[in-house]
Amino acid sequence: MIVRDFNKITLEEPERVVSDAKWSSVRMLLADDGMGFSFHITFLEAGSEHTFEYKNHFESVYCMQGTGSITDLGTGETHEIKPGVMYALDKHDRHTLRADEELVMACCFNPPVTGNEVHQEDGSYALSDS
Amino acid sequence: MIVRDFNKITLEEPERVVSDAKWSSVRMLLADDGMGFSFHITFLEAGSEHTFEYKNHFESVYCMQGTGSITDLGTGETHEIKPGVMYALDKHDRHTLRADEELVMACCFNPPVTGNEVHQEDGSYALSDS
Repeated sequence: MIVRDFNKITLEEPERVVSDAKWSSVRMLLADDGMGFSFHITFLEAGSEHTFEYKNHFESVYCMQGTGSITDLGTGETHEIKPGVMYALDKHDRHTLRADEELVMACCFNPPVTGNEVHQEDGSYALSDS
Repeated sequence: MIVRDFNKITLEEPERVVSDAKWSSVRMLLADDGMGFSFHITFLEAGSEHTFEYKNHFESVYCMQGTGSITDLGTGETHEIKPGVMYALDKHDRHTLRADEELVMACCFNPPVTGNEVHQEDGSYALSDS
């Protein structure tokens, strides 16, 4: 059994905390944990906007805190984000996520993120063997 | 893109809400959503105790609210559960979960739960083709 405490990770395992432009994410589970998915707690700064397209991954995102919106760039449809709302990118949907208030999200990725990916210019994560 | 609101599901999609002895769970994502994992928001009643062993699944559980403890029945080790603590059953670990206060947990399963499983006497879910 793996047990990890989000509150301790930032102090004891800073390598699990990644940040980029106006977001940061705590990697609670990665590929090498052998679960077949990865699990992340992600913070998006109030007032920020992010365009992602995970061409190689499925991702689900559950809002625990904050408000904002998501636009599906394929359909043009916009959905409100608030606590309790989940979106799942089952078609690797290119999307723009906006945080009106700081968003705190619980995210699952399949295949699991290894921790070595970087966001590419198109907003995707490349697959990684390492 | 799939978008689901926990707050609406209990009213509009009661078939996504399952309950058993002193726990209930809202199925935000199931196998037929095609994500390769399932995602659930699960409530465990204050004062309740639950023994599970997911022989056929990996499960991660992130505590969003409440306090309690988990005992790994293989090792005898007990861990505190509070907001921010995650446990992951990477060895299909048989375990007892205790809710001192009501626990609200975000759970991921791989393979994804289909919605047709039942907890067996040994605390596992059988695999299901349907």
